[in-house]
Amino acid sequence: MKRSLSRRGFLQTAGAGTVTMWIPNHASGYTAADMRAKAAGGSLIGVSKWELDTPALCVDLDKMDQNMTTMRKKLAATGVASRPHAKTHKCPAIAKLQLAAGSIGVCTAKISEAEALFANGVEKILMTTCNVSPGKIRRAMKIRKANRSFVQAVDNPRNAQDLSDAAREAGIVADVVVDVAVGTRSGVPPDERALALAQLLDKLPGLKLRGMISYDGGAQHIKGFRKRAEESLKRYEPSLRTFEAMKRSGLNTEIFSGGGTGTYNIMTKVPGFTDLQVGSYIFMDCQYLEIGGEENEDLYTDFAPSLTVMTTVLNNYFPNRLTTDAGQKALTLNQPGPIVIGEKGFRYSAGSDEFGSIQYETSSKAYTVGEKLELIVPHCDPAVNEYDQIYGTRKDRVEVVWPISARGHSQ
Amino acid sequence: MKRSLSRRGFLQTAGAGTVTMWIPNHASGYTAADMRAKAAGGSLIGVSKWELDTPALCVDLDKMDQNMTTMRKKLAATGVASRPHAKTHKCPAIAKLQLAAGSIGVCTAKISEAEALFANGVEKILMTTCNVSPGKIRRAMKIRKANRSFVQAVDNPRNAQDLSDAAREAGIVADVVVDVAVGTRSGVPPDERALALAQLLDKLPGLKLRGMISYDGGAQHIKGFRKRAEESLKRYEPSLRTFEAMKRSGLNTEIFSGGGTGTYNIMTKVPGFTDLQVGSYIFMDCQYLEIGGEENEDLYTDFAPSLTVMTTVLNNYFPNRLTTDAGQKALTLNQPGPIVIGEKGFRYSAGSDEFGSIQYETSSKAYTVGEKLELIVPHCDPAVNEYDQIYGTRKDRVEVVWPISARGHSQ
Repeated sequence: MKRSLSRRGFLQTAGAGTVTMWIPNHASGYTAADMRAKAAGGSLIGVSKWELDTPALCVDLDKMDQNMTTMRKKLAATGVASRPHAKTHKCPAIAKLQLAAGSIGVCTAKISEAEALFANGVEKILMTTCNVSPGKIRRAMKIRKANRSFVQAVDNPRNAQDLSDAAREAGIVADVVVDVAVGTRSGVPPDERALALAQLLDKLPGLKLRGMISYDGGAQHIKGFRKRAEESLKRYEPSLRTFEAMKRSGLNTEIFSGGGTGTYNIMTKVPGFTDLQVGSYIFMDCQYLEIGGEENEDLYTDFAPSLTVMTTVLNNYFPNRLTTDAGQKALTLNQPGPIVIGEKGFRYSAGSDEFGSIQYETSSKAYTVGEKLELIVPHCDPAVNEYDQIYGTRKDRVEVVWPISARGHSQ
Repeated sequence: MKRSLSRRGFLQTAGAGTVTMWIPNHASGYTAADMRAKAAGGSLIGVSKWELDTPALCVDLDKMDQNMTTMRKKLAATGVASRPHAKTHKCPAIAKLQLAAGSIGVCTAKISEAEALFANGVEKILMTTCNVSPGKIRRAMKIRKANRSFVQAVDNPRNAQDLSDAAREAGIVADVVVDVAVGTRSGVPPDERALALAQLLDKLPGLKLRGMISYDGGAQHIKGFRKRAEESLKRYEPSLRTFEAMKRSGLNTEIFSGGGTGTYNIMTKVPGFTDLQVGSYIFMDCQYLEIGGEENEDLYTDFAPSLTVMTTVLNNYFPNRLTTDAGQKALTLNQPGPIVIGEKGFRYSAGSDEFGSIQYETSSKAYTVGEKLELIVPHCDPAVNEYDQIYGTRKDRVEVVWPISARGHSQ
């Protein structure tokens, strides 16, 4: 678990798998000849990221490596583990790197994401959303039957009964965690209903209770570390009380999972807390950069911005403006808008579907049509979801091309 | 061209092609057995849209059909044609229906979209964005070499020279239109530079000038028909002057294209104007609904909202709130937010990546977990881009499943 994430280890996990990873997840239908042809598409290996067809989604592997190392080191003394959320990258190869870097598993938000990860060799999956439709329940049981490491969330009694019935029909006992709400989005409210649900999960014949999850989506982006720490711990008190009640009742609490990139060094203070569902830490984005960290109240510098989009200047006719080829479909509408690396005076709007619009008062140089710019994305998760592949670069050269196998898997 | 879009004709164009259209555009690598297996996935044919795995992107085929008929009928007496923008649907099957319904061609925004359409049998393509990188220029020439109906936009002299050189190298004469700016996003400014560029395009040995395009993105969503008509025609005057100057100079002006769904019945008043780059009219969305039409200043009723997303209620614990499975990755962040059909009191926010959040004061009924809702999307183009397939329904039953072959093709 604490095995060091050397460059060599990294390559063994990710790089060596390049040829197979190059094959899209529609791979089943490809002939061996097609697979070789696709692998030969690896001719992009070694190419400068500045030469890629744009818009292109890139991850700086040294920075991503550094982010995983930071997470491992900072958590080492706390007794809390990381169980990164794969909804951020939707990429089996990156999930495997996270596991190799000491994470105890990964999370998924949707059953179709879990399927894509499992089909590509990732087994330790905690699905944090409930499967409520008969179809999704069947698919969840199918994964669980093939994969003993699959755990799924439950937040209501009727669903608990449905899951138990489906598990028995599938001839298995399915692992579940109770999802306890922070706020008003998902989960069972953190009161007697949560404990009653946990007790039901413990009793139902088709289910095995593994503990609880409780994620506070609203706390991650509170600006200022001290304010974030204070508010997130306060908001988490009802969840902690639920955990303690479950423990007192003799229920299994081996999993007590939650937290995110904004609270990874705050949740470690919650007694009994086992693991963090951090997602954005490997990539970072404009939204997280501005929340501030423990050492720098203005800029969140704990993790390096590894994820960027390369774009091309298409138009420079208009004073103090540039138009690029990366609009909403390449960057999403999230705010704050993209950061143009190296151009502090640029304001980038991704408000058009197909075009980016830059306005500036000052520019480091005069840009010609065809020149490239590199952007930090507003919000990493939905931006990644716009691309079929991600270029892993080191010192600006493409080292690997990974399919984003769960891209578009919102079901 | 004016052949009626009967249900039978529709099925001949689209439905009969179902089995092959079912194959994703990665189809080349599929074996015949795989293709049959995929076609068998057509077991969804006949299923109610209320039974689909969610989030699911659906188009009501009767409404889409009606929208195409409306466009054809309203343009019939004007002498102006439609050349619908395929960036909206990214779907070759729908492009073919538009052509069957009398459109003179389709537009694409990106070379990768043009490639996906052409690979799936669509030939009459006008690419409205300039290809400025050497790679994209080569790909454009490759399409043009295989497809005499391919026309591309140019907005600067250096690019014109590059295109001409590449065409000669490919042994062809490539068809081009000059892109004339309205506003400050793309195109050459509508002054002497536009005319000079058109003259250059006319002279360059590798190119054949076909006319001009000029699209006003900013005019489409001006609220109120009269205001929209007045402003858009005023904003278009410099483009019209450029067109007239080109004509006086003896340049080829067989194409004078622009306009969109918001101005389809306004641009017909521009002398010499040949065709409309309408996109959203087949689908509609919340943004277009609120711009108002000629007959109804508050609601744009010229076209029927045919495009919807089906979603499932995941959580109903919290007073006056529901959580669904369709968030930003299923609907985008565009404003105004999604409309829940049949629930006027619902305010739907797609602000979370994975979840939709509904707040309401009044509800037609009490919703249980697992129930479905149907949503009109905020903005159709980027919403479609989040899905691999679209379910074509008639009377709520799936009649066809089309791959969105150019989904994610932002390059």
